[in-house]
Amino acid sequence: MPTRVAFLGLGAIGAPIARHLAPPPFELAVWNRTRARAVDFAHGLEVRVADTPADAARAAQFVVTCLSTSRDVESLLDGPSGLIAGFEPGAVLIDCTSGDPATSRRIATRLAEHDVGFVDAPVSGGVSGAEQGTLTVMCGGDASTVERVRPVLQAFGKKIVHCGPIGAGDALKSVNNALLAVHVWSTAEGLAALAKAGVSPAVALDVINASSGRSNTSQSLFPERVLTRAFPRTFRLALLDKDVNIAAGVAREQQVPSPMLQLTAELFRAAHRVLGEEADHVEAVRLLEEWAQVEIA
Amino acid sequence: MPTRVAFLGLGAIGAPIARHLAPPPFELAVWNRTRARAVDFAHGLEVRVADTPADAARAAQFVVTCLSTSRDVESLLDGPSGLIAGFEPGAVLIDCTSGDPATSRRIATRLAEHDVGFVDAPVSGGVSGAEQGTLTVMCGGDASTVERVRPVLQAFGKKIVHCGPIGAGDALKSVNNALLAVHVWSTAEGLAALAKAGVSPAVALDVINASSGRSNTSQSLFPERVLTRAFPRTFRLALLDKDVNIAAGVAREQQVPSPMLQLTAELFRAAHRVLGEEADHVEAVRLLEEWAQVEIA
Amino acid sequence: MPTRVAFLGLGAIGAPIARHLAPPPFELAVWNRTRARAVDFAHGLEVRVADTPADAARAAQFVVTCLSTSRDVESLLDGPSGLIAGFEPGAVLIDCTSGDPATSRRIATRLAEHDVGFVDAPVSGGVSGAEQGTLTVMCGGDASTVERVRPVLQAFGKKIVHCGPIGAGDALKSVNNALLAVHVWSTAEGLAALAKAGVSPAVALDVINASSGRSNTSQSLFPERVLTRAFPRTFRLALLDKDVNIAAGVAREQQVPSPMLQLTAELFRAAHRVLGEEADHVEAVRLLEEWAQVEIA
Amino acid sequence: MPTRVAFLGLGAIGAPIARHLAPPPFELAVWNRTRARAVDFAHGLEVRVADTPADAARAAQFVVTCLSTSRDVESLLDGPSGLIAGFEPGAVLIDCTSGDPATSRRIATRLAEHDVGFVDAPVSGGVSGAEQGTLTVMCGGDASTVERVRPVLQAFGKKIVHCGPIGAGDALKSVNNALLAVHVWSTAEGLAALAKAGVSPAVALDVINASSGRSNTSQSLFPERVLTRAFPRTFRLALLDKDVNIAAGVAREQQVPSPMLQLTAELFRAAHRVLGEEADHVEAVRLLEEWAQVEIA
Repeated sequence: MPTRVAFLGLGAIGAPIARHLAPPPFELAVWNRTRARAVDFAHGLEVRVADTPADAARAAQFVVTCLSTSRDVESLLDGPSGLIAGFEPGAVLIDCTSGDPATSRRIATRLAEHDVGFVDAPVSGGVSGAEQGTLTVMCGGDASTVERVRPVLQAFGKKIVHCGPIGAGDALKSVNNALLAVHVWSTAEGLAALAKAGVSPAVALDVINASSGRSNTSQSLFPERVLTRAFPRTFRLALLDKDVNIAAGVAREQQVPSPMLQLTAELFRAAHRVLGEEADHVEAVRLLEEWAQVEIA
Repeated sequence: MPTRVAFLGLGAIGAPIARHLAPPPFELAVWNRTRARAVDFAHGLEVRVADTPADAARAAQFVVTCLSTSRDVESLLDGPSGLIAGFEPGAVLIDCTSGDPATSRRIATRLAEHDVGFVDAPVSGGVSGAEQGTLTVMCGGDASTVERVRPVLQAFGKKIVHCGPIGAGDALKSVNNALLAVHVWSTAEGLAALAKAGVSPAVALDVINASSGRSNTSQSLFPERVLTRAFPRTFRLALLDKDVNIAAGVAREQQVPSPMLQLTAELFRAAHRVLGEEADHVEAVRLLEEWAQVEIA
Repeated sequence: MPTRVAFLGLGAIGAPIARHLAPPPFELAVWNRTRARAVDFAHGLEVRVADTPADAARAAQFVVTCLSTSRDVESLLDGPSGLIAGFEPGAVLIDCTSGDPATSRRIATRLAEHDVGFVDAPVSGGVSGAEQGTLTVMCGGDASTVERVRPVLQAFGKKIVHCGPIGAGDALKSVNNALLAVHVWSTAEGLAALAKAGVSPAVALDVINASSGRSNTSQSLFPERVLTRAFPRTFRLALLDKDVNIAAGVAREQQVPSPMLQLTAELFRAAHRVLGEEADHVEAVRLLEEWAQVEIA
Repeated sequence: MPTRVAFLGLGAIGAPIARHLAPPPFELAVWNRTRARAVDFAHGLEVRVADTPADAARAAQFVVTCLSTSRDVESLLDGPSGLIAGFEPGAVLIDCTSGDPATSRRIATRLAEHDVGFVDAPVSGGVSGAEQGTLTVMCGGDASTVERVRPVLQAFGKKIVHCGPIGAGDALKSVNNALLAVHVWSTAEGLAALAKAGVSPAVALDVINASSGRSNTSQSLFPERVLTRAFPRTFRLALLDKDVNIAAGVAREQQVPSPMLQLTAELFRAAHRVLGEEADHVEAVRLLEEWAQVEIA
């Protein structure tokens, strides 16, 4: 018997995830706000292009969403063509969006009224991890629901972790990304100061990467993207800004004094506003470079 | 012909470094403020215990210092028993202290008047790196002087890096340690918020360490020292506070707006004052735990 | 014809406000969660003690609430004894709580479905302003509703300001209080540093209060409450923490990078947690004094 | 017998101060780096234009300096035409510069070797206070020296305050100005958020100025300079940046954890760098306005 899956949101991460859900034992229906993208995706695959979220959900045991924000997911629930109108009782919504815990809990409560389960399941590993099916998936939800969706997640993920109750996956993803943001900004401050003091950023990174101050950011992002001035656009600053904001909100909600996360949120908010919607997340260093009047190169 | 070396400051890092300078081709004299420690060190080795800094420097081609602060080094220069009274013209002071660039420059200027060279050469790698002779050494000074001292540095260091002019080694060491401090504090904020939101710190670290938010701190320090509540005392918070302060000072001196380094300096200043002189650097998380009323375990 | 008013929340500020609404032309019913307080209040006055929020609202043209948080107000709306069950169509809820705009907007939306108006109307001026009827009242709502409630507000307020749409009063009140918090903390930092540098806080305040750095905080709170070590408990730190948090949230919601408001929120969050629920807002300086190991006196 | 005074530094504040020291009982010599300014100043007055600092100091009982930084004062001490070459034993240097305590202490030590006294005496009150002779003067030094210079200070100051040992005047002036900077920035954050939330800055200021969040900044600077978009250039941002940096340095030197002063220093450092040397201090709000994409008007 096939596993019937619907997939909504065929963006940079969503499309390669969905590709793993097309072959047997899966039977896939896809929907995308810009329909042309869904048609393109389906080209040459045994995939049904749905007309509406409701149409996609119809007959699906699992509906997977991969959108920009939890609010985007929430906005697909209602109305005659909304997900709720299509859901089979007993189905589960697997939300791979890098979402926020409060909205995920609200969505879960709505769905539960219709006997539909919910797992927040944001992923880490980027486009290449999605293509290779080696993503890390951070799951929030009750243990039995997480077990039910595990075969779906294993189609595109290598490390499937049950993190805690609904929203726990969102919370953990946001904190991971907030640490990334902390590393990007603090490394930029340090390298800018060193550059002006006569220490070349390449030499500095070589030493830091052999010492206690190293991070994935100093080991990969700065050598490959900043020093080269390549700044490839792989993950938008606008999305990292959103994630840091979610993490900062989790800390506030949990009454954890967190001056560093909050400051980071403000710096990325400023960078996002100054550098615009299309900038890559690593380009946040450009704001610091402007302030310091030095190039980290 | 032996290479005559003097070593001043036989502390936790200094003593194991000095041990590499005792056997041929080196001929070693040692001095320590608490003389008993020098006598203990010399026990069973072919090492001369000097009575004063001047006595240690006499006849030495290289004088190595490894003290708490640059000010401590500076305080050994003057007076009838001070280093300057003992130095041979043409000798070089190699300062392995995690020092500050401004004081290093001042020391170098003083020494140059007596035809004595100077290299700031702080190290990274901890006690075990010192014991195994695998330290990273960050050198500041002119290229020819750095070349002259290289054979001495190679006795205890594996990676010898010429970073830039005098003070460049200090600057780089301080920035590396400031990034360490940033990582310790920000990881603590994130994990405390997650713990209160129902995500266990062990699960969170497992995921972060497979994702973009990882750092040496999340990969080693938190699993081994915080989650276990072991907090071994390997590197004093008081010294990390000093280092962050040096890095923050470099950024200010270089006119680099650096809100994150400055905030980190304040948080470690507060942690140092509240937790005292003997606390380990990783224990800074205890201050955040008190604020958040949660244990990261 | 009398103006029929209900008043809910007879706390430190609520009770003296309500007292102005007891004499003609007003006809007053009161309700308080702890009923004894309502009975005490009514003693010797022509005031009806209501059994429930619904009972208080019955027949009232204006219902005034003065509680700790907007959530407290929201929690009184529903159920058989809730406000909505009692409201007359055409009545208006005047909320004098120092509330948050988002919850106020949600309350207003709920009430509008029952043809009940809403004005957020937080006040400034403290207990003595409430007693003397000289409060400043910051109103959010549509202009015609604000005009309708003005006669009620004038019974206890001297300066009635229409600030903008629903939530505007809350927003402004929270920003005012956040500035108060900024002033308390920054003045403490400055005076602590000066005290340790040999400048007496009394001399410092005398000069600052004649110069450009002066604020209401430096002119009143520090001379009267900190230097004297009196720290009278007039306004709880817990409530100021809440207000700063609201202001910081308004800034985030409006996409205003606001590192200073966010940092202040974290410092007051920490102070609140360390100093407890009963501490006065000015006692936040005690946390800084502990960090700095100096008394501002 | 006349009181012989030398005045060095005829800038925006210096010139009007010096004018009070021209008539009897004073006998005035002036010096300015740009000589033309000294000649202009002397026009129509009984004032001697000196050729060098040494020439100005010759025969003077009191030498008054009013420059941009303590380093500028220090740079006038040495060499054949420097102040030390001209000073009479027993004279006193009165430094009205908004200086830094460490440099002032260094200057005082140098002068003491030549039997010359020192008082740091920064002023507050602006150009109009200088013109009207109503400045507040913050003195650091020993009590007897401050008493000796009091008659000179009274010629241009109304409130003469002995703050503590050498450097105490500088420290207090810097903290006052740092509080001014805190107020400018935090008020801007609050008003920007309110403006975007629908509360006009004029209404907001009207309410805040009747409430606990008021400061001299909200009462004068914002209504007169920001809302009007006038931004008159009365006190350069570059100088306020310097002052905040001095205050932040005092706090660090005194081991006072001071996250708010340090953050303010970074924000003004960034504003100074982005807005340039000629911007007025109140124009720092323009940086926040750019981040927030709103005008406070």
